[in-house]
Amino acid sequence: MQALVLANGKVEYTRSYPEPKPESDELLIAVELAGICATDLEIIKGYMGFSGVLGHEFVGTVVKGARDLMGKRVVAEINCVCGKCDMCHSGLSNHCRERKVIGIKGHDGAFAEYLAVPRRNVHVLGNTLSNETAIFVEPLAAAMQIVQQVPIEDRHKVIVVGDGRLGLLAVQVLAAAGGKGNVVLLGRHEHKLTFAEKRGIQGILLDDMLIKPQWDVVVDCSGSPEGFETACKLVRPRGKLILKSTWATESVGRADFRPVDISPLVINEVTLIGSRCGPFANAVNALTAKQVETNGLITSRFKLAQGVEALEKAKEAEQIKVVLEI
Amino acid sequence: MQALVLANGKVEYTRSYPEPKPESDELLIAVELAGICATDLEIIKGYMGFSGVLGHEFVGTVVKGARDLMGKRVVAEINCVCGKCDMCHSGLSNHCRERKVIGIKGHDGAFAEYLAVPRRNVHVLGNTLSNETAIFVEPLAAAMQIVQQVPIEDRHKVIVVGDGRLGLLAVQVLAAAGGKGNVVLLGRHEHKLTFAEKRGIQGILLDDMLIKPQWDVVVDCSGSPEGFETACKLVRPRGKLILKSTWATESVGRADFRPVDISPLVINEVTLIGSRCGPFANAVNALTAKQVETNGLITSRFKLAQGVEALEKAKEAEQIKVVLEI
Repeated sequence: MQALVLANGKVEYTRSYPEPKPESDELLIAVELAGICATDLEIIKGYMGFSGVLGHEFVGTVVKGARDLMGKRVVAEINCVCGKCDMCHSGLSNHCRERKVIGIKGHDGAFAEYLAVPRRNVHVLGNTLSNETAIFVEPLAAAMQIVQQVPIEDRHKVIVVGDGRLGLLAVQVLAAAGGKGNVVLLGRHEHKLTFAEKRGIQGILLDDMLIKPQWDVVVDCSGSPEGFETACKLVRPRGKLILKSTWATESVGRADFRPVDISPLVINEVTLIGSRCGPFANAVNALTAKQVETNGLITSRFKLAQGVEALEKAKEAEQIKVVLEI
Repeated sequence: MQALVLANGKVEYTRSYPEPKPESDELLIAVELAGICATDLEIIKGYMGFSGVLGHEFVGTVVKGARDLMGKRVVAEINCVCGKCDMCHSGLSNHCRERKVIGIKGHDGAFAEYLAVPRRNVHVLGNTLSNETAIFVEPLAAAMQIVQQVPIEDRHKVIVVGDGRLGLLAVQVLAAAGGKGNVVLLGRHEHKLTFAEKRGIQGILLDDMLIKPQWDVVVDCSGSPEGFETACKLVRPRGKLILKSTWATESVGRADFRPVDISPLVINEVTLIGSRCGPFANAVNALTAKQVETNGLITSRFKLAQGVEALEKAKEAEQIKVVLEI
């Protein structure tokens, strides 16, 4: 089958990747649309030490593995869990000790014609939800995890650092929780900030921002050490910093690497909360109910055969979401 | 007067530093004993951009400023606060927006014959508390801040990273809160681990440690990026990391600098809590009641005139606490 494969730090498009053979608890999915995530770009740089088929944001159709689901259009959670370890038993199966993660760790991903996923991971989509909207289920779930971990109240002054794909979803979730007037988006790109401002959320360009520790809740969606450092400086004493960013430390030693000064976390006694995957069902519901706007977020479309080019395009600052049609 | 002064990244002993002139709300203290802290060594490297008289751990006698306190032996909190800003008004005066910090930020410190401190900062010592014990009030208060921020329960598996001065106090505080059997000290120095083991607390050498994310509560007292990175790897999913360490990012670019991989904080959704100064009154009480052992922690004594040599000595790995007699 066709696939976009990472091996030895290099991504190649191939027409002859072996089709996945689903395990007994797995379904085979024909991928229709896949999204490129900042994490994919970090994985290519060396984060997680992954090799195989990339991609963990996708919409597809069930073609094998369960009669009742055949032909259904689905999205799927990315953690493939054991169900047996201490984490699974304590209700934290997203943190399963033995987990594989689709397109990230030990499990081939979605930049391919087919992928296999555990049946328990899939969420069936209603007819009113287009592929172009459903492709945002995974990142929206990640954004919704923020408010599951840190309850947002009306009195909180909230700022999101990073106006990329995740930041633009996060501000909408936070504004719904705490009020539009209390949420600000900090970024580097006029047109991305405009997307938020059209939804009543104030955008501030980084160059215009007074960096002082005055914010009750700061969410780092920047995906970069520089953004994390800025986030650390914005949290008020005893405030909260939700960290969504990860990046490849393999970039250390490159000319563009800047180490991070985390001393504000100690000096201001900040509580930092690491935040990863979120509730898919909530994200499917919010998108179906049109509570979150995604129109305009897809800025480029490529065929899978142009996948290498698509990954390069996704690095460009003006892009928001780049998708692959399979 | 005699003083140990940091200027332009260099520490010099002088006999002709101007004697401090106390403000109307300040007392003049004749310093008797002062302790060298890891923070002092980081400040010399550039942390906080401080210049002036170093030193924030001290015991002294009131010689001017308040008739009722004349001749009393005291310790003093290090934050000199305005009492007027939003932080002071919300009960977080340690985070005062306008604060000066003794020997750290905008206020001369204790490596001198005299220093001035706000009257509200001093705690009078009872006769049974020796200078050699009271010198640990400031670091013990910092250790006690941990259990104020993160309640420790019997069921928690707790590990302290770093067997230095602060680590050896922290394990005692944590063991008192959560049970000796649940607290482990991780370090690089046999004789420091032995200090903990004599108090019934297990010590593990870093080389013998299995670094896995299995600890409910991890406390980083290492004072180094390497220690912080180890701490990040030890916290179980959804566990807690208390960060006491700060370090000079000016060390970046030096051969010994290693950047930190914080991705485990995101992947394991760890809650990190920055922790700084603590409750002095509690520390004075605990030391007076002999609830915390400090005998054996002072490993070197110097006269103030030998201060530069003392600061070099404090860098040596086998030292625990180096003190200056004034």
